[in-house]
Amino acid sequence: NQSLKLAVIPGDGIGTEVTAEALKVLEQVTASSVAGGAKFEPTRYDLGAERYLATGEVLPDSVLAEIRNHDVILLGAVGGKPNDPNLPPGILERGLLLRLRFELDHYVNLRPSRIFPGSVSPLAPHILEKGEVDFVVVREGTEGPYTGNGGALRVGTPAEVATEVSVNTAFGVERVVRDAFARAQRRPRQKLTLVHKTNVLVNAGSVWWRLFQEVAAEYPEVTTDYMHIDAAMIHMTTDPGRFDVIVTDNLFGDIITDLAAAVTGGIGLAASGNVNPDRTAPSMFEPVHGSAPDIAGQAKADPTAAILSVSLMLDHLGLTEAARTVEDAVIADLASREPGAALSTPEIGDRIAARVAG
Amino acid sequence: NQSLKLAVIPGDGIGTEVTAEALKVLEQVTASSVAGGAKFEPTRYDLGAERYLATGEVLPDSVLAEIRNHDVILLGAVGGKPNDPNLPPGILERGLLLRLRFELDHYVNLRPSRIFPGSVSPLAPHILEKGEVDFVVVREGTEGPYTGNGGALRVGTPAEVATEVSVNTAFGVERVVRDAFARAQRRPRQKLTLVHKTNVLVNAGSVWWRLFQEVAAEYPEVTTDYMHIDAAMIHMTTDPGRFDVIVTDNLFGDIITDLAAAVTGGIGLAASGNVNPDRTAPSMFEPVHGSAPDIAGQAKADPTAAILSVSLMLDHLGLTEAARTVEDAVIADLASREPGAALSTPEIGDRIAARVAG
Ligand SMILES: CC(C)[C@H](C(=O)O)[C@@H](O)C(=O)O
Ligand SMILES: CC(C)[C@H](C(=O)O)[C@@H](O)C(=O)O
Repeated sequence: NQSLKLAVIPGDGIGTEVTAEALKVLEQVTASSVAGGAKFEPTRYDLGAERYLATGEVLPDSVLAEIRNHDVILLGAVGGKPNDPNLPPGILERGLLLRLRFELDHYVNLRPSRIFPGSVSPLAPHILEKGEVDFVVVREGTEGPYTGNGGALRVGTPAEVATEVSVNTAFGVERVVRDAFARAQRRPRQKLTLVHKTNVLVNAGSVWWRLFQEVAAEYPEVTTDYMHIDAAMIHMTTDPGRFDVIVTDNLFGDIITDLAAAVTGGIGLAASGNVNPDRTAPSMFEPVHGSAPDIAGQAKADPTAAILSVSLMLDHLGLTEAARTVEDAVIADLASREPGAALSTPEIGDRIAARVAG
Repeated sequence: NQSLKLAVIPGDGIGTEVTAEALKVLEQVTASSVAGGAKFEPTRYDLGAERYLATGEVLPDSVLAEIRNHDVILLGAVGGKPNDPNLPPGILERGLLLRLRFELDHYVNLRPSRIFPGSVSPLAPHILEKGEVDFVVVREGTEGPYTGNGGALRVGTPAEVATEVSVNTAFGVERVVRDAFARAQRRPRQKLTLVHKTNVLVNAGSVWWRLFQEVAAEYPEVTTDYMHIDAAMIHMTTDPGRFDVIVTDNLFGDIITDLAAAVTGGIGLAASGNVNPDRTAPSMFEPVHGSAPDIAGQAKADPTAAILSVSLMLDHLGLTEAARTVEDAVIADLASREPGAALSTPEIGDRIAARVAG
């Protein structure tokens, strides 16, 4: 009869709408026997564009300290209107989302991709026929080009120089590569692909390459493969079924997971976990999509990615049966949706919650 | 009756095979009246994996000086067998290809994409029906994450730290953005999309954003648009017809142009120009594909991308009618290919050369 402290950050726009449905499903699944009596005590944190615009606060240290004191975090989406002059780019991304990932040491950014029933992939039948698409990207989450290292000189003048420094440590690369190998070993196909750009980014590339080879020696059952990020674009669109587990750096992972979401039928279904495998701080689960200000407040957003993020969260917490129950409910719901029927956000949440209730 | 000095770098693997066909077509078009009497004097430079493995030389300074003394360069492809222990990653890429781009100030890396007749796109009909796909990526070619700045400490140890520094200057960004606006203005749709990751790479992002806005003010006819690189993955696969001209940095450009080549039906048709618009040094034209050691020497490579690179080269030299003649011949040839018929490399070259001859 575990009691788990859950920090909920609904965020902005459709973030709040999809989070409500995710919590609805979570409540339903914990009420059922599959959760083995686990209970969640949610605490809501209002963070995001709205709070920043109203108060100037992004993520006060005291709030971060409180959030840290939870077992797990569920996030909707943060972000204001595009090009809002009061909201310079990066303020929320660097100050809130990335700060959480970095401070809570979310070094495994986990992004599964598969083609769900009823999904409309932009890929042609002759591609999809090549094989089932079901892979997971293990994106490094705490270093690479995302560190915020770098700066700018003579800003705003014709002599401006701006740098971005990608920082790659053996420590940081080895731990995420290890996690990826362990995941690949547990999957039926036992295949791991490293994606990088070792032929140009030779310094970063060589540390990734070296540690990938070193850890590979400990996992003889896992078949390994290497692909440059540009070549990965081609394989992802012409034969996505070839992938099983992909491990890559923070920026390449950002790019390839959006492509993966696109080819498997849309960002509305892409869930993610920002995982701290060492459990020194709470992990955070969130849909890959953003706050979509253009459709906010209209109950048009598909909460499925947020609900699948709940499933990833349950799995991370060891509530495997509950995780599977949510995922199965989502799959059954997707399979039963009438093509072209526009369901509202709460309708989808209700349908999935009802299936979870059994 | 111009006489133009052409440096030819066939390179390795299929590079030499496709270059032979490109030169065949070039010879044919210059023999015809559309070239207005222009003649090319080719000098061949043996550079690439083979030379490096035989001599240890990548690009001797004296050879670079000779190449510089040409009007234009045609390159096939360079690269040896994958994972050849005698050919560490980056040696040829950084030492030859990127060195040429940087030394000859190829700041506009031009990569047109369209769906040619008979192309088999991996995208589904419901995507392709949205609109004709015909866009060009203007990829910055002389800075960004490709500078080779950065380094590594304690290499090979558990305490290794490796950095890659993306360098972005107002000078470098403004000139490529200007070139992109000028190109967009000359095209019927007059649309330019900036692709970056301003919400995370805030230093580099802000210099790109600022100069994009500044130059935009001088081109009121051009409609502008901004997209994060991750979002661009989604748009490129779900609605590639929306793009007209894209301007982006060196690394994002590398990634997005391979995706563009994939969605428009394959890297076998993707041509590129490494252009020095100020003409302070020769520009270089090359297919986007690599040396494909796996199919080298079998006359299986499609020389179309190399032949289309000749068309880009002719256009750059002001030989507009000759450029169009080559392009039209390629299109007519593609339209006439029997689906599934495997033509050899010289067969395709012959067919296109014959059409050029009239
Ligand atoms: C919003 C942004 C900072 C974020 C990222 O780049 O990681 C997003 O694109 C994602 O993939 O979670
Ligand atoms: C081979 C490599 C250095 C090169 C690049 O990254 O620019 C290639 O991928 C390209 O796009 O021309």
